[in-house]
Amino acid sequence: MGVVVQNIERADPAVIDGLGAAGVATVHEAQERKGLLAPHMRPIYPGARIAGSAVTISAPPGDNWMVHVAIEQLQAGDILVLAPTSPCVDGYFGDLLATSAMARGCRGLVIDAGVRDVRDLTQMGFPVWSKAVFAQGTVKNTLGSVNVPIVCAGAAIEAGDVIVADDDGVCVVARAEAAAVLAKAQAREAAEETKRRRLAAGELGLDIYDMRPRLAETGLKYV
Amino acid sequence: MGVVVQNIERADPAVIDGLGAAGVATVHEAQERKGLLAPHMRPIYPGARIAGSAVTISAPPGDNWMVHVAIEQLQAGDILVLAPTSPCVDGYFGDLLATSAMARGCRGLVIDAGVRDVRDLTQMGFPVWSKAVFAQGTVKNTLGSVNVPIVCAGAAIEAGDVIVADDDGVCVVARAEAAAVLAKAQAREAAEETKRRRLAAGELGLDIYDMRPRLAETGLKYV
Amino acid sequence: MGVVVQNIERADPAVIDGLGAAGVATVHEAQERKGLLAPHMRPIYPGARIAGSAVTISAPPGDNWMVHVAIEQLQAGDILVLAPTSPCVDGYFGDLLATSAMARGCRGLVIDAGVRDVRDLTQMGFPVWSKAVFAQGTVKNTLGSVNVPIVCAGAAIEAGDVIVADDDGVCVVARAEAAAVLAKAQAREAAEETKRRRLAAGELGLDIYDMRPRLAETGLKYV
Amino acid sequence: MGVVVQNIERADPAVIDGLGAAGVATVHEAQERKGLLAPHMRPIYPGARIAGSAVTISAPPGDNWMVHVAIEQLQAGDILVLAPTSPCVDGYFGDLLATSAMARGCRGLVIDAGVRDVRDLTQMGFPVWSKAVFAQGTVKNTLGSVNVPIVCAGAAIEAGDVIVADDDGVCVVARAEAAAVLAKAQAREAAEETKRRRLAAGELGLDIYDMRPRLAETGLKYV
Amino acid sequence: MGVVVQNIERADPAVIDGLGAAGVATVHEAQERKGLLAPHMRPIYPGARIAGSAVTISAPPGDNWMVHVAIEQLQAGDILVLAPTSPCVDGYFGDLLATSAMARGCRGLVIDAGVRDVRDLTQMGFPVWSKAVFAQGTVKNTLGSVNVPIVCAGAAIEAGDVIVADDDGVCVVARAEAAAVLAKAQAREAAEETKRRRLAAGELGLDIYDMRPRLAETGLKYV
Amino acid sequence: MGVVVQNIERADPAVIDGLGAAGVATVHEAQERKGLLAPHMRPIYPGARIAGSAVTISAPPGDNWMVHVAIEQLQAGDILVLAPTSPCVDGYFGDLLATSAMARGCRGLVIDAGVRDVRDLTQMGFPVWSKAVFAQGTVKNTLGSVNVPIVCAGAAIEAGDVIVADDDGVCVVARAEAAAVLAKAQAREAAEETKRRRLAAGELGLDIYDMRPRLAETGLKYV
Repeated sequence: MGVVVQNIERADPAVIDGLGAAGVATVHEAQERKGLLAPHMRPIYPGARIAGSAVTISAPPGDNWMVHVAIEQLQAGDILVLAPTSPCVDGYFGDLLATSAMARGCRGLVIDAGVRDVRDLTQMGFPVWSKAVFAQGTVKNTLGSVNVPIVCAGAAIEAGDVIVADDDGVCVVARAEAAAVLAKAQAREAAEETKRRRLAAGELGLDIYDMRPRLAETGLKYV
Repeated sequence: MGVVVQNIERADPAVIDGLGAAGVATVHEAQERKGLLAPHMRPIYPGARIAGSAVTISAPPGDNWMVHVAIEQLQAGDILVLAPTSPCVDGYFGDLLATSAMARGCRGLVIDAGVRDVRDLTQMGFPVWSKAVFAQGTVKNTLGSVNVPIVCAGAAIEAGDVIVADDDGVCVVARAEAAAVLAKAQAREAAEETKRRRLAAGELGLDIYDMRPRLAETGLKYV
Repeated sequence: MGVVVQNIERADPAVIDGLGAAGVATVHEAQERKGLLAPHMRPIYPGARIAGSAVTISAPPGDNWMVHVAIEQLQAGDILVLAPTSPCVDGYFGDLLATSAMARGCRGLVIDAGVRDVRDLTQMGFPVWSKAVFAQGTVKNTLGSVNVPIVCAGAAIEAGDVIVADDDGVCVVARAEAAAVLAKAQAREAAEETKRRRLAAGELGLDIYDMRPRLAETGLKYV
Repeated sequence: MGVVVQNIERADPAVIDGLGAAGVATVHEAQERKGLLAPHMRPIYPGARIAGSAVTISAPPGDNWMVHVAIEQLQAGDILVLAPTSPCVDGYFGDLLATSAMARGCRGLVIDAGVRDVRDLTQMGFPVWSKAVFAQGTVKNTLGSVNVPIVCAGAAIEAGDVIVADDDGVCVVARAEAAAVLAKAQAREAAEETKRRRLAAGELGLDIYDMRPRLAETGLKYV
Repeated sequence: MGVVVQNIERADPAVIDGLGAAGVATVHEAQERKGLLAPHMRPIYPGARIAGSAVTISAPPGDNWMVHVAIEQLQAGDILVLAPTSPCVDGYFGDLLATSAMARGCRGLVIDAGVRDVRDLTQMGFPVWSKAVFAQGTVKNTLGSVNVPIVCAGAAIEAGDVIVADDDGVCVVARAEAAAVLAKAQAREAAEETKRRRLAAGELGLDIYDMRPRLAETGLKYV
Repeated sequence: MGVVVQNIERADPAVIDGLGAAGVATVHEAQERKGLLAPHMRPIYPGARIAGSAVTISAPPGDNWMVHVAIEQLQAGDILVLAPTSPCVDGYFGDLLATSAMARGCRGLVIDAGVRDVRDLTQMGFPVWSKAVFAQGTVKNTLGSVNVPIVCAGAAIEAGDVIVADDDGVCVVARAEAAAVLAKAQAREAAEETKRRRLAAGELGLDIYDMRPRLAETGLKYV
């Protein structure tokens, strides 16, 4: 506690944007189904799709002092990712902090706690994925840390990892794997396009994926 | 496990559509307040209103093999209804499966688990009522059953039962009772129209329903 | 149980409207961070912002008889606030009751239980903050009370207290403190405006609030 | 609602007792992993193991009138099984009702709601599996039904079905299948005894169940 | 925040002890079914039964500074009652604080948050009713208040109110009503004794409470 | 997925046993309040206190194949730690697996899912900390991994890390930090002994920790 790591490495911006375009479900599949944050992390408004580099915050329950500290560490394209050190739903973040973060090019917030001023945040176009919407105010009395490894909503995240977030939730991609995951995600998207056309034409997945033999072998009975 | 019932009976399409027009709250009341699925079943987007015949799926946690099997059993006007054999929030269903289901005339999905690609599903106009939005991928290794009786979100459902779903949630009507329930639902709607007008004009429910004598008798005190 | 308090005092309408304009987060802060209802209280549609005088209802689980009784006590500008006597998610309230309440000038409903007909309520513009959306019908067999002190979603509320509700949730202000809280809320809003401009211009909260010395003194280390 | 089915069929007492001796986990496996009630159903004290015929109760939230009605339907060896018509944690049942039920030979209570007087119930040796321990009192104003089909904690149960309950939770066996399930359960127990001895001696499940070839074929890599 | 009320009034010790002997369920009934804390408040070990005067604590999430302050206010026979200002499960209290509280005659702790060292507390015989058992440490940086009105687990509690706690949970009795509630509780206990004997002898509640006529009138059908 | 790491490093057995003797709360404090698993991880019986080296399992929902694989990797003094790849409460583990694990010297199981046969496990003295007790059976069809880094109940755990578990829950200590943490834990215990004696003698924490000046400075008011 009480540490701010100032120089973090980030992934290639083009890779980050590619992952954002692929979206959470595809990226999750492309990296062998890992990296998802828990499904209680919901967007405050529908339609937002972002990707960026994680600036991580480990903060005590009900204390948002470290958010101010973290904002100084933001670079354009970053995403704030906050995990409280114990379960908390307080509103660590509102429109003033969003104004400050946006001024530094921040693309959004992922917080396993609460957020407030969601009407303002929606109008500002500052997307947030959170555990709760709650106006409960926080104090500035106890240190946490910035850019240290955290576990947020069940996922291990390091500073500089790529965060992808959309209506399906939030996924983290390890920085070192980002390029490889993007390649697989794009391959997957290409492959899905063909399948989508065949399915739309009425072909069955049972046939496209040749499932019938294994279903029969496994013992499925039609009655 | 491992059974697919192929020929199920369905209710009269006109009855089904009538129940859909009446909506969940009215249908629930018309059948003496039974048949509701638990309130954690929420629509992925507001405004959808559907009714259709249940094609039921009992699937293992984290395994969507049976969804592919069930899609072959769909007829136009059907609704997929999936209950996992133990609590699960994985994303059993996404845009490819929705494409396939829509190609067969499926009206929507009711799933006591997770769904993903909700942005795509929203754009496709394929409504889903689910326990969670979660991108977690599933496997295709273990059998379940299709068109067997299930308990989904606390409600007992048989294949061919009528599912009604809207912003209020999901309700099931036993196939054999569908016509009778529709008649009661329509009678209820007609009766409500008069009440609505009187209430809008400022009359009190206390007077319209003649509640004052029984309230007094039961001991209500005005101070 | 079984008591209806008929003559309650209300706060000054101008103060009430001022509190509504300030919104939940600001009002909560202005009264030293008290009065919030639990974050499970969510609006049935986004964008509603209301303030009004609480007409409180203590009702048994699954019994909405007292809602009818409470509606007679409504004056223009009031808000119904219902706490069940034990946890319940039934749909105590729907479009007919909303029609009746609106006819008497009611501005909305805050209910630590369920609500139904949410599509109709949305179209009518009758806002509700609730624990659940659930069509489950209720009976009219057991007495409760109206305009007695209640605990609703964790907040102690007395009849005539000011309820403020928006996308951030719900906050209660004691009637006697309403004017003083409004003054503080407006002062806070004025002060925030300057900060917002400075933050938008790229200044850091660390500097605006002069946090660096205390962070250093508390032991924060930059590495 | 409002129906009491008086003459229900029960399974053979010897079969019932055999299922009780086998216990929940074994019975659940013996009937192909169906029939479990949700894991929130916990015993009020450890060590109880019972089996009996279900006398089912469908009761409104917060109203235990039907429990009194159901007690008259009890025969020696029965188990009361109560499902509220909507989620509820009130204390429907306490020491007086337990005294009455025990006087009629009732073996215990399974309730997807609350129970109270648990200290007394423990001393009386009257076991209960419940969703909650909660002293909240209930009323006697609204009808429910007795010995109708219910869904209790996610499991469909009919009057006369066999209920098995122990420290692992609660399982229901359809009356018509009880004898066949018992036979399978006993076969399973016999088979497990050999395995237990081999495992205790240090043999691995990998070898006893010959898992290594399929693990290798599926792609497991040792590094 | 930041206030310690030093001189609080307490109920008559004999009344307090009488309420403790009556127990939670009886006291709750005797005061017309009010005053229960939510059922998530569970004892850390079975069998404890206490009653005492509430010394209330309003504390920030994750900060137990005020517990130290409150202990100075304890008199023999008191019970500490802590409500966090927002939801929290941290371990505010452990064996050292229990040692200190016991040294001042404290009878136990009721906390809508977490507790730790439960093995030690059990051995010391210091009973706790809590929302969670969790070792998470807390800080001492932010003020709260002592002996102010709080809402704890859904119940409004004032300093000096009587707390009754046993295996059924926790109930609060307003100080001013304590003697009257005790009288009713004792009357209830006396009345129950007769009923218990009749029920144990096999008489039915249906007959003892003369329920059959009203059941028939309400429409109950035996089939 | 599909990887088994065979040779893991473990901490010094004396250090492990020392951490076990210190217990969860003390170890958690000694390592600056990190490493706790979420409070939903509860022991199946009270009184167990263990420490050991983590053999980690990442398993699909409802599939316990990898438990068999992991048991082969156990050495005397190890603890199995299982995290499902998505939320699951199925009963992955029962008395047969416990027999096998005990035969290899395993000290217990930590599982963020369900466990069954808890009566047998209790009699065998095989302690388990789990999210649920649930008899639901699992399959053996899909690979997971053994001895890879996992996140279990919110805590990041690597194979060979030290697990400490008792009635307060579960804590993980990084292998490399184990000796240092033990030293701090023992220092803490020594320091606490003095405090305990002073507190038992009636001294106040306010005085022992010299809190009064900072409380006054922060603004605490006695009234």
